[in-house]
Amino acid sequence: MPEYVHGGDVYSYAARFGAPPVDLSANINPYGMPDAVRQAMHAAVDACTQYPDPFCRAARQAIGVAEGVDPGRIYCGSGAADVLDRLAAVLRPKTVLLLAPTFAEYERTLAGAELRFHMLRADESFAVTARILDDITPGLGAVYLCSPNNPTGRTIASALLREIAARCAAVGARLVLDECFLDFTENGESMAVYLDAFPSLVLLRAYTKMYAVPGVRFGWCMTADMALIEALYRAGQPWNVSVIAQACAVACAGARGYAAQTAQRIAVERAYLAEQLAARGLWVCPGAANFLLFRVDDTDLTEKLARRGILLRDCANYRGLTRGYYRTAVKTRKESDALLAALDDIRKGDG
Amino acid sequence: MPEYVHGGDVYSYAARFGAPPVDLSANINPYGMPDAVRQAMHAAVDACTQYPDPFCRAARQAIGVAEGVDPGRIYCGSGAADVLDRLAAVLRPKTVLLLAPTFAEYERTLAGAELRFHMLRADESFAVTARILDDITPGLGAVYLCSPNNPTGRTIASALLREIAARCAAVGARLVLDECFLDFTENGESMAVYLDAFPSLVLLRAYTKMYAVPGVRFGWCMTADMALIEALYRAGQPWNVSVIAQACAVACAGARGYAAQTAQRIAVERAYLAEQLAARGLWVCPGAANFLLFRVDDTDLTEKLARRGILLRDCANYRGLTRGYYRTAVKTRKESDALLAALDDIRKGDG
Repeated sequence: MPEYVHGGDVYSYAARFGAPPVDLSANINPYGMPDAVRQAMHAAVDACTQYPDPFCRAARQAIGVAEGVDPGRIYCGSGAADVLDRLAAVLRPKTVLLLAPTFAEYERTLAGAELRFHMLRADESFAVTARILDDITPGLGAVYLCSPNNPTGRTIASALLREIAARCAAVGARLVLDECFLDFTENGESMAVYLDAFPSLVLLRAYTKMYAVPGVRFGWCMTADMALIEALYRAGQPWNVSVIAQACAVACAGARGYAAQTAQRIAVERAYLAEQLAARGLWVCPGAANFLLFRVDDTDLTEKLARRGILLRDCANYRGLTRGYYRTAVKTRKESDALLAALDDIRKGDG
Repeated sequence: MPEYVHGGDVYSYAARFGAPPVDLSANINPYGMPDAVRQAMHAAVDACTQYPDPFCRAARQAIGVAEGVDPGRIYCGSGAADVLDRLAAVLRPKTVLLLAPTFAEYERTLAGAELRFHMLRADESFAVTARILDDITPGLGAVYLCSPNNPTGRTIASALLREIAARCAAVGARLVLDECFLDFTENGESMAVYLDAFPSLVLLRAYTKMYAVPGVRFGWCMTADMALIEALYRAGQPWNVSVIAQACAVACAGARGYAAQTAQRIAVERAYLAEQLAARGLWVCPGAANFLLFRVDDTDLTEKLARRGILLRDCANYRGLTRGYYRTAVKTRKESDALLAALDDIRKGDG
């Protein structure tokens, strides 16, 4: 079986240590799934005796209302990863510009393309700046961006995103913008209002993290390019989104207040954890999402934490990062304190 | 949105007629999902706060025990359709031999390959015979077979399948054998016992139909070719099988008695429906599955039945069939009688 580099593999952990860990490797809302979402999933179990709606009509309608987007401009998949797979299969870009570091899944789906990297800089705290405009050149088939970026947590300013979108349009490059963590930011502005202005813009979204439903598999994209929407439907099986995932999405779309409330709570915990990590001499990236990238002079931290029951994401294998970078989810005070106590314990043991 | 030619689109029907139909277009076990399966799905809802196991360890273990197959030889997907998509992406056969008629999904996934067709013959009641061996020639990359075949319901004899597998091995062709409806036959023998004998054999299976869970999305394949298994994992996103689908599969694997019982009940209903259709002068294909292919001098039957609240599968667009062929699911006596009464009603109205 292949080894996957992503977080959240609590199954391997349990097989090894025999107990579930404090999982700070997957960036899931620690307050869990809202009751309305849970109930919608239970209610959908009996409806699984029928094939799923291949067109996800109810889910697209609900998302359209929640996002202020024409449901026809929405394509739903079995998680954002499914949408990424289909986008790559349909767009088949010859040359793609990616951030480094960024979410590793883009690169996986783009096997066969020539990849160029816009290297984010530690001395700029990994911010995406206007520097990137120089890298958007004729001949590029697509630009994949992520805001907030994973694993840095840095958002890209809306004004800069518009400049980037215009530059992509000018050079004929598709702009795929992953906004999957956007609803964890406090003032995150989606580019959804610019779909008409930029027909080559594709926005990627998911309810996975905010509504704590990564096990359900639901994600979607939005674009004004209707030919692309049509092609995405044809790029794989018609029944990719399960009956339960569609019901889950309808419930999530109706529970937007939960997102705003969570974003506020996470902001408090993010500030606390960042401050506490910095107080211990670690460099902490000023991210705006429900995770924090930090640097520590310890290349073996994940293993040490695993032995203490904590799963962390080692970021050494991210393109553009080096050993010593780690990503922790921002969860509740209890989990943050568990991490901090374990770090203190490790320091004592080492010292 | 693309138009899909498959059965089971009760959503379009409901949008048009405002009421759920008697659905004889999708071949789902009419006795519904077993209680143990329903309970397993409910129990899995709360576990959806975690990502699914990318390796479907518990599901493969349970299936391995039920099928007498090493779990390492099993690859699970989001429905058999997902497995077919990945097989096509990995095998990329240049030339493929398909039955005609057969399940339309194979052809969809094999876009780009040169397709050859072994034409089944109405005067042989669409049986697969030793004639097919002549079509398995050097240069073929793969042969896709289906037993019982969809939409004919005809099974391929085990002895002939072994000859076919040997011939495929001799010419270097992969043999993909879809056994998704096998557990509806009374004496269906899986080729799973021949995985060692034929490393190029890939068996496709699903719990979808027998356990009435098409909305859940779970299917798998089995092969002794471990390089193929490894490649399937890499051929798309790692989290393709939802937490609920994995739990569902474990429960289905533990409920094999339900399959045997259902197969017996369906056999009685199949015999009844076939006899009643034949008594009305229709030609009925001697199928062994939970559906029947029949021919009638009426090219507009699905529309007439839809107006009477019954969804049927028009088979005119199957390669190798002509107008006048239809497929009906075999469900309970009540549904069969509803179909028969509607047919009688149509005949009276036309006469």
